[in-house]
Amino acid sequence: MADEVKSFNVDYTGQYRGASKLVVLPTTTEQIVDVIKLCDLWKLGIVPQGGNTSLTGNSTPTFDEVVISTRRMNKIISIDADTGTVVCEPGVIPANLEQTLESASYDLTLPLDIGSWDISCIGGNVATNARGYRTLQYPTLRHSIVGLEAVLPNGDVLSLMEGSQADQFGMDLKQCLIGSEGMFGIITKVAIRCPSRPKFTNVGLLVCDDYDSVIKVLRYARKEFAETLSAFEYMDQGALGVAERELYMKLPIPFNHYGTVRRKKFHAIFMEVSSSASNKQSSNVMTSFIDKVRNLGLCCYGMSSQDKQESEKLWGPRRSVITACKATGTVFKFDLTITPEQLPELVHLLESVSASDRTLASGDGKVQRVPDGPANAARIKDLFVFGQLPTGSIHVVATVEPGTCDLARASLLGVHQTPACVTRLKMALYNWLRMRKTSPFSRLLSLSKISDEQITQWTHQPDWDEHRFQGFPSRDLQLSIKKAWDPKGIMNPYKSWSFIDT
Amino acid sequence: MADEVKSFNVDYTGQYRGASKLVVLPTTTEQIVDVIKLCDLWKLGIVPQGGNTSLTGNSTPTFDEVVISTRRMNKIISIDADTGTVVCEPGVIPANLEQTLESASYDLTLPLDIGSWDISCIGGNVATNARGYRTLQYPTLRHSIVGLEAVLPNGDVLSLMEGSQADQFGMDLKQCLIGSEGMFGIITKVAIRCPSRPKFTNVGLLVCDDYDSVIKVLRYARKEFAETLSAFEYMDQGALGVAERELYMKLPIPFNHYGTVRRKKFHAIFMEVSSSASNKQSSNVMTSFIDKVRNLGLCCYGMSSQDKQESEKLWGPRRSVITACKATGTVFKFDLTITPEQLPELVHLLESVSASDRTLASGDGKVQRVPDGPANAARIKDLFVFGQLPTGSIHVVATVEPGTCDLARASLLGVHQTPACVTRLKMALYNWLRMRKTSPFSRLLSLSKISDEQITQWTHQPDWDEHRFQGFPSRDLQLSIKKAWDPKGIMNPYKSWSFIDT
Repeated sequence: MADEVKSFNVDYTGQYRGASKLVVLPTTTEQIVDVIKLCDLWKLGIVPQGGNTSLTGNSTPTFDEVVISTRRMNKIISIDADTGTVVCEPGVIPANLEQTLESASYDLTLPLDIGSWDISCIGGNVATNARGYRTLQYPTLRHSIVGLEAVLPNGDVLSLMEGSQADQFGMDLKQCLIGSEGMFGIITKVAIRCPSRPKFTNVGLLVCDDYDSVIKVLRYARKEFAETLSAFEYMDQGALGVAERELYMKLPIPFNHYGTVRRKKFHAIFMEVSSSASNKQSSNVMTSFIDKVRNLGLCCYGMSSQDKQESEKLWGPRRSVITACKATGTVFKFDLTITPEQLPELVHLLESVSASDRTLASGDGKVQRVPDGPANAARIKDLFVFGQLPTGSIHVVATVEPGTCDLARASLLGVHQTPACVTRLKMALYNWLRMRKTSPFSRLLSLSKISDEQITQWTHQPDWDEHRFQGFPSRDLQLSIKKAWDPKGIMNPYKSWSFIDT
Repeated sequence: MADEVKSFNVDYTGQYRGASKLVVLPTTTEQIVDVIKLCDLWKLGIVPQGGNTSLTGNSTPTFDEVVISTRRMNKIISIDADTGTVVCEPGVIPANLEQTLESASYDLTLPLDIGSWDISCIGGNVATNARGYRTLQYPTLRHSIVGLEAVLPNGDVLSLMEGSQADQFGMDLKQCLIGSEGMFGIITKVAIRCPSRPKFTNVGLLVCDDYDSVIKVLRYARKEFAETLSAFEYMDQGALGVAERELYMKLPIPFNHYGTVRRKKFHAIFMEVSSSASNKQSSNVMTSFIDKVRNLGLCCYGMSSQDKQESEKLWGPRRSVITACKATGTVFKFDLTITPEQLPELVHLLESVSASDRTLASGDGKVQRVPDGPANAARIKDLFVFGQLPTGSIHVVATVEPGTCDLARASLLGVHQTPACVTRLKMALYNWLRMRKTSPFSRLLSLSKISDEQITQWTHQPDWDEHRFQGFPSRDLQLSIKKAWDPKGIMNPYKSWSFIDT
């Protein structure tokens, strides 16, 4: 394979590799139209690619599809400070755009908070409906998109540059393209509504003795800060412990090393308050909030920061928790939505299901196996919970120590292997969500398997679909909609929702 | 026709009338499934109906379709104050839900601001992606929907109760259902994320001498209030004049009656600031803002209010402007998106295009025709502009005095007649939007014709489509997507996007 096309064939994690011999790097929509019309005529598969930072394998070819990279379409077309509307080409890198937006004449900020900030492209951010945990005010990029232009699989240009979030007329086709991961067409122009730049940001790290206090702090924070609360992340002791143990991190809170017997459990809250209003004092509102909840006996330890560098340090454990897990071995992450009050019940359920599948830390810090279950089975080493409490978006993480028998099976079955202990957890979660009458939500959103530098969206595997689609008719519907957009099935084929036109 | 089914056959405006003999009023999703399965089997058309307050004729039958009204499915299923998540059935009336939400134990508010607040249903609000002008923070209901359940045209139940705004998995089918006006299925459950209840609301009415000052006030307001700015509506002199003249309103600003010669033009701004944060003082922030911009010479008159009743009075002219137009005769309203800086150019364009089509008010207040153009043609009486400046959502309104020749044609061609003077305006607007290189947006969003108690979404007429779809391939695509959801075409048929399966 020619060296020039190699980087377009391998995904960010190195796990997915294609064999495309043709990479097109257009600079205009018209060039994309020309290429797609040929592909349509000759029925060639197309892979749209931006920064190629996808973790799900959807931005690289599977076989020899034509890669259309929008990387060179990187012009900012217009910025209107009065409405905060930015129009740009899909190859613009968020960090570069932010640099332009933060100039005094615009004073805007991108409603986006993602790890691949400086290497991904806006087109890909839209196609994956990017989201972050420090943007409570802007849950996903979808909320801020006011216009799109895309080239359809037949080469037609679909111009949806309404400049408005209201779909005052027929279907809002923008909504289909957002989050579609390139299966409907190639995004060639994006209009984003950007908020004003925050004038101050306060970060706080609070430690509570019990989960009840966490809920109470959440309620106080919602009342106190309302629309200025930009993040409220919960981490349990296990999550913090993993970060400390595996990353040799010096956590900014005084607590003992993982493995020693503790007097009692504790719970951590990472909070951020930010506002772009100039009539707000930039004084440390977080400090007085922490004082208040401490005086109420809700929080046993707290620290705050309004300095940018120190704030980044405070955010460290939350930002690094997944990296820390990966050092342990293979990580399984479940994403679900619950109400904050349901969390203790969820934790109880997880613990009871996994009890016989756990490795246990003894008093002296050494790990010992519990007696039941085959001695050579894979075991759950860490099981912890973290997430965004004000929206109920919770992540359950299980790190798995491979057992000898599972390892053998894994080598036969490849990266998509689930150990039996994780399958039991998954079924328990699935049934709990579906059966709980008090739970308004019935879906497990996704499950990822993360092993050193390899992240597999489990949701794309048949093993997952089986559970996921029990009783849901949405799969057939999604295939029909895909066919409506792409009757020949040439756009990003061989991916989760593709089909082959025979 | 039996009296019982009559009200389900006639729309809110009295303009659209169907002849359905069968209205079903289910109380459960299962009952809807049973009815739809029969309709699917027998290929009977179905019209989903909520409060039947649609102004576009999409909630009433065209012929003898079966009406499925969700009005009796009016239970609130759950409210979680910590995440602000409300789950309810589609027949719940927004005003009733708000009453429950405002209780101290929840302290939430619906992110919705619509005129039919107390007679429409939540299901219909979602199906039309309801929006209002006093919710800058929540531009449309789409932004707040975190879960939906719907019955598909084949009777399958599509459960999308993710509880999350992130579509972490495949297509986000919720987005298709939102704003679909019943063409894809019947919404049977809704999960909405509601913000905390505002702790204070300040309203201001400001008058500026020139449009430049309006833009400057907008910029100050964005900086000063940022995320707490909940409304910023602009109205030009013409818009205010119509409200005063036709409604005999006593406007709360000292200005002369329409028709007298003025020294110069003026411009009005209606502003609202609201916050649910308890650390905000409820003092009148609007008063000090008005003082500030007056001292800067940007505003020649201003008044503010934090009292609810007085605030409603201040909002009067903005709220009543369409009602006022209707008293004049037939009203044509164009909706478009521009940048605030483009407004003077737009106004100039409109005035130059319509000059020969105008009736002119002479110095003594009497109306006289300009000499050119046929004496018996329909004339534009009022031409004015209002809209939401921070998002650039602008409405251009032309009220038309029928000329004798047009009247004759109108009686032949029915309610969808456009007078030649309006067609000229429409084409000018359309071309301006499409051709302007500096304009990021290329679409005229919609055009409505409003005559006494009759509102026609012009966008649903072929005459409009002709211009609207010039060069846009989206119509075919929308029909294919409709077919994917509803292959037999039984769901809300004979409407704008329907097709008949032959």
